[in-house]
Amino acid sequence: MSGLLKSAKSIVPLLDRVLVQRVKAEAKTASGLYLPEKNVEKLNQGKVLAVGPGFTDANGNKVIPQVKVGDNVLIPQYGGSSIKLAGDEEVILFRDSEILAKINPDV
Amino acid sequence: MSGLLKSAKSIVPLLDRVLVQRVKAEAKTASGLYLPEKNVEKLNQGKVLAVGPGFTDANGNKVIPQVKVGDNVLIPQYGGSSIKLAGDEEVILFRDSEILAKINPDV
Amino acid sequence: MSGLLKSAKSIVPLLDRVLVQRVKAEAKTASGLYLPEKNVEKLNQGKVLAVGPGFTDANGNKVIPQVKVGDNVLIPQYGGSSIKLAGDEEVILFRDSEILAKINPDV
Amino acid sequence: MSGLLKSAKSIVPLLDRVLVQRVKAEAKTASGLYLPEKNVEKLNQGKVLAVGPGFTDANGNKVIPQVKVGDNVLIPQYGGSSIKLAGDEEVILFRDSEILAKINPDV
Amino acid sequence: MSGLLKSAKSIVPLLDRVLVQRVKAEAKTASGLYLPEKNVEKLNQGKVLAVGPGFTDANGNKVIPQVKVGDNVLIPQYGGSSIKLAGDEEVILFRDSEILAKINPDV
Amino acid sequence: MSGLLKSAKSIVPLLDRVLVQRVKAEAKTASGLYLPEKNVEKLNQGKVLAVGPGFTDANGNKVIPQVKVGDNVLIPQYGGSSIKLAGDEEVILFRDSEILAKINPDV
Amino acid sequence: MSGLLKSAKSIVPLLDRVLVQRVKAEAKTASGLYLPEKNVEKLNQGKVLAVGPGFTDANGNKVIPQVKVGDNVLIPQYGGSSIKLAGDEEVILFRDSEILAKINPDV
Repeated sequence: MSGLLKSAKSIVPLLDRVLVQRVKAEAKTASGLYLPEKNVEKLNQGKVLAVGPGFTDANGNKVIPQVKVGDNVLIPQYGGSSIKLAGDEEVILFRDSEILAKINPDV
Repeated sequence: MSGLLKSAKSIVPLLDRVLVQRVKAEAKTASGLYLPEKNVEKLNQGKVLAVGPGFTDANGNKVIPQVKVGDNVLIPQYGGSSIKLAGDEEVILFRDSEILAKINPDV
Repeated sequence: MSGLLKSAKSIVPLLDRVLVQRVKAEAKTASGLYLPEKNVEKLNQGKVLAVGPGFTDANGNKVIPQVKVGDNVLIPQYGGSSIKLAGDEEVILFRDSEILAKINPDV
Repeated sequence: MSGLLKSAKSIVPLLDRVLVQRVKAEAKTASGLYLPEKNVEKLNQGKVLAVGPGFTDANGNKVIPQVKVGDNVLIPQYGGSSIKLAGDEEVILFRDSEILAKINPDV
Repeated sequence: MSGLLKSAKSIVPLLDRVLVQRVKAEAKTASGLYLPEKNVEKLNQGKVLAVGPGFTDANGNKVIPQVKVGDNVLIPQYGGSSIKLAGDEEVILFRDSEILAKINPDV
Repeated sequence: MSGLLKSAKSIVPLLDRVLVQRVKAEAKTASGLYLPEKNVEKLNQGKVLAVGPGFTDANGNKVIPQVKVGDNVLIPQYGGSSIKLAGDEEVILFRDSEILAKINPDV
Repeated sequence: MSGLLKSAKSIVPLLDRVLVQRVKAEAKTASGLYLPEKNVEKLNQGKVLAVGPGFTDANGNKVIPQVKVGDNVLIPQYGGSSIKLAGDEEVILFRDSEILAKINPDV
């Protein structure tokens, strides 16, 4: 028998999949009041934890993911496969082409 | 923890995506009366803020977006992924092929 | 702030899109009586106002629209993106392949 | 302002479309009694009035319609775009590949 | 005016279509009792009456139907376009790829 | 007139179709009690009776079925075209790509 | 007559299918209490038991599965064909491209 995976580090995405940890939104109002979990807005921002090797498309072209580990990215509201980890953590596997944009941290 | 993105400038679209800010319609009647938010018609006009690098299609052809930063464009009523920013602002990511037309400002 | 586009002339269709103005049907009966707006039949005839540059398909072939500015055309009952203009005018953007036929004015 | 097209002759089909006039079924019973309009069975036979120039498919092959003006053909019960003409006449635009069969008049 | 086609012989299938006459099931029980029409099971067996010329696929390959006139075939329960003939007869036009199998009469 | 096919042997599958006879599950409990028909579980095991010649795909590659006559196979719960035979027998025609796996009898 | 397969070892996947045994979640709470079957969470982890030979795609490229026998993998919540085995065991056949990720046991 076994249980939920302890760490996302053990997950090696296949094909052009990208493992993303969704950034948790501010759980406090500006004046410091804690928001109940269900009122905390689900941001569509995330951090890339791991990237698959890509795949060869129908015409033999090698398709490599555009994002790399450590990138901050914008992810769609829906889609992707969510994976529950031990300690109530959750990560999501997207196809590279589902990732909307990179977030440039220097701006 | 973090919150909504402060500025659209930090968004770098991927593939053939185009970042557009929808133009806000006239919130006043001709005679100067302010319209309540919900009566303000959603125009399908917008301004291009950023453009992705394009992608290589199944036959190895490079597909580059047709619009560039600063273009005024006509956008569809539906579709695209909307991104909420701090300060109640909102921008939308469209695929280049979803953009209907350019608006020639000189006419 | 800005409002509805004043003229269709400022619209530059993208890809293989075609800008069409729907021809308004006879608003009077044969005996000269004015029909209420909702009884006026929506003709599927229109005039081409502007044509996009076309696009390159997956195999690198250049696909150019078959109709040109000034053509009278038959358009489908549904489909296309309608664009409201100032002065209660309306134009429609179709994909070239949605246009059913040309109407030969000399016949 | 203008009204319904007076004649099908002014219609020039685009791409691989084919203009067909549906053949009207016998409006009388064998014993000569006139059937009310709604009981008259919609035949799936028709006559070809005009044929489009064809199109070039994704691989550069020229696709030419198989039927020609004057052919009697079998048409599907549904599909196609119907065009109302003046004088309560009606013609239908089909894609060439929707036409089921030719009817050999000599048999 | 005209009526239903008198004979299937006048039908010339287009593309890869195949004209099939469905074989009528036994209308009598083993002990010779006649079954009412609606209890007579619709067999999925048929006889090929005519075959289209085939078509050229997107890559320029000529696709020729696999069955020929006179073959006994197994046809799907649904699909195909049914054509009513004079004298309450009915034939069906299938795409060649919809025909399930040939029936070897010698077995 | 004719009736149901007497034997599956007369069926010659077309294209990449495979004729399969579903294996009937144990109709008795371990202790020898007969189960009523509807409680007998529909196994997804079957025996290959006949195999089609295959087909040429859009790029001219010949696609040959992977299974051969006599193979024991795993078949999906749904899909395929079922053919009733005389004597309350039934066989099923699957596309080769629908067959899930072979069953190695020596294991 | 025959019954459920005794062992998964006899299953030889076809095309790019992969045979996976889903890992059973901890049936006990941290404090050792046994959970009733329906409360035991369905993990999306599994072990690869067998792998198909792959297939040749429409352009003649050989597509080989990325996982191999013995790999621990992440599988989607839905999809795949489940196969019941004797002794209330169950295995699942996925297409290789449905497998989300490998789990690196050393982490």
